[in-house]
Amino acid sequence: MSKETITLAHGSGGRLTHDLIREVFLRHLANPKLTAQDDAAVWAPTAPPGTRFAFSTDSYVVQPLFFPGGDIGKLAVCGTVNDLAMVGAQPLYLSAGFILEEGLPLSDLERVVASMAQTAQRAGVEVIAGDTKVVDKGSADRLFINTAGVGTVAPGVDISGANARPGDVVLLNGPIGMHGLAIMTQREGLSFSSTLASDCAPLNGLVAAMLATGLPIHCLRDPTRGGLATTLNEIAAQSHVGIEIDEAEVPVPETVQAACELLGLDPLYAANEGKLVAFVPPEAAPALLESMRRHPYGREAAVIGSVTADDKARVVLRTRLGARRALSMLTGAQLPRIC
Amino acid sequence: MSKETITLAHGSGGRLTHDLIREVFLRHLANPKLTAQDDAAVWAPTAPPGTRFAFSTDSYVVQPLFFPGGDIGKLAVCGTVNDLAMVGAQPLYLSAGFILEEGLPLSDLERVVASMAQTAQRAGVEVIAGDTKVVDKGSADRLFINTAGVGTVAPGVDISGANARPGDVVLLNGPIGMHGLAIMTQREGLSFSSTLASDCAPLNGLVAAMLATGLPIHCLRDPTRGGLATTLNEIAAQSHVGIEIDEAEVPVPETVQAACELLGLDPLYAANEGKLVAFVPPEAAPALLESMRRHPYGREAAVIGSVTADDKARVVLRTRLGARRALSMLTGAQLPRIC
Repeated sequence: MSKETITLAHGSGGRLTHDLIREVFLRHLANPKLTAQDDAAVWAPTAPPGTRFAFSTDSYVVQPLFFPGGDIGKLAVCGTVNDLAMVGAQPLYLSAGFILEEGLPLSDLERVVASMAQTAQRAGVEVIAGDTKVVDKGSADRLFINTAGVGTVAPGVDISGANARPGDVVLLNGPIGMHGLAIMTQREGLSFSSTLASDCAPLNGLVAAMLATGLPIHCLRDPTRGGLATTLNEIAAQSHVGIEIDEAEVPVPETVQAACELLGLDPLYAANEGKLVAFVPPEAAPALLESMRRHPYGREAAVIGSVTADDKARVVLRTRLGARRALSMLTGAQLPRIC
Repeated sequence: MSKETITLAHGSGGRLTHDLIREVFLRHLANPKLTAQDDAAVWAPTAPPGTRFAFSTDSYVVQPLFFPGGDIGKLAVCGTVNDLAMVGAQPLYLSAGFILEEGLPLSDLERVVASMAQTAQRAGVEVIAGDTKVVDKGSADRLFINTAGVGTVAPGVDISGANARPGDVVLLNGPIGMHGLAIMTQREGLSFSSTLASDCAPLNGLVAAMLATGLPIHCLRDPTRGGLATTLNEIAAQSHVGIEIDEAEVPVPETVQAACELLGLDPLYAANEGKLVAFVPPEAAPALLESMRRHPYGREAAVIGSVTADDKARVVLRTRLGARRALSMLTGAQLPRIC
């Protein structure tokens, strides 16, 4: 179908919709639950008693669709897998809803769906429910994807943005700003070194490795839109605590720093798609840090700060020169359509 | 916020995103799981052993956003609730992903979210996960919504489009074509009698009433995009059976018939959002029909046909004049952006 383009009839629910489902979606994503093609997919849970369920959703409108290190399909799988992982869940199943603009090359759609399939396999999840809508030319920008995901939370796991406690150590699994700056430089037509690629990755394996230590983890969050600074502010507010971060400990790749300077951006507010912060009790921090560093997505994990008792929920950056500056939540729109 | 409009900063993940979540989404949809504002909502299942889970998704791109009998918010709740009900599931939780076009009046968004909240309450479901993206003006048409849903399927319930058997009776819960024609006449600026309103409704209560009889139900499906004719073809193909329908038994409201004649449409291919077909064993049909007629959304339920042994999976319409004509799946795009 590679020379063809999406037409309104592909969204009619009739013959062409069924052809599209069979020739593109089922060809790449086939599994028994999806292939059943009922109005909803059904599964029998195999989890032990006391298991809870987690549910999350995100829509993806990133522009451009394809960028160094990923594409909208990879992002749509990783983003929702990661949201589930951030409550300590093992992601199991995803749904995928596509909104296609009339005129989208079918080859672009196939490339995106193939990327979703590959990423889902790597993350160990199955896409078991889907939907496709087509809108007339000019009513959407090429392709939007929504994914929702379901996972299981093991008994005893209690991870929430509200659980940070004074004295907790803040861990970060690696360098920041790569997704945001990869998108921005691609969009602006700037060319940097080939190392400036999105960090887009499924983090459920890393979280599983951390949970496997059996050590307590108070909260996890992936600093996506709004960047590390915004995420820290969210957690400070949810947990009613202060957070202090050491600028010198936050890894920022040289290419990200250079691109930020050129574009007038701050890496602390730039989006990530393969990063997480973990808030853990100080006595558990060394072993958890070690478990992160042994995982491919945590090799550069670092302690970046700690939690303070501050009922105003302030986030403070200790700069390299020893100054302390307040780090607020992102205001305005730094990078529209970053994910 | 009623005089304001959506800006790109509402989608930044920063301060304005948080304000929007608090002032619009949480205000209308608040429940403890959503209000926790973690990356994923977590719940402990209370269902008995042997319970299975159902998962479904749909995106909604209907144009116009507000139409007689409903709006995109009501539709987004009913559509996914109904997809879950069509496998016999009790819908529990929904996610909601919003894609907003820069410049959308906040008052429109509020009206849609309030409608979702009201419909969710009526259907007995909670929205526990959400996401909002904003795209620049011209990159989307005002407002798109994706919902995904999770429900539970009781032990012993086995409903699938693959389960129709020769001899099965086909039941329909009421008159067809109302959603499709309500949208089309609104879009074309035609004015018909006030009875031409969308049938958009959550059908889980009706399905629960049918299941409460304890009688076997082989398959259920809601004839949305592509209409009754397309749905029957889907089931015939999935179950490898033929289906014969009596034209005289299919209820078509006079206003739908009149609008179809004017617009050159066939009510058998027009979308419905509050209808279902049920395939049931003949001995169970009278009591199931009775259970439907006692429910507000099944008062005009009727037997419209039966299943035949036909390995070519043909759907045949017996016309009022006694002729038999093949009823194929919808080809082309009858009504773009109907849902």
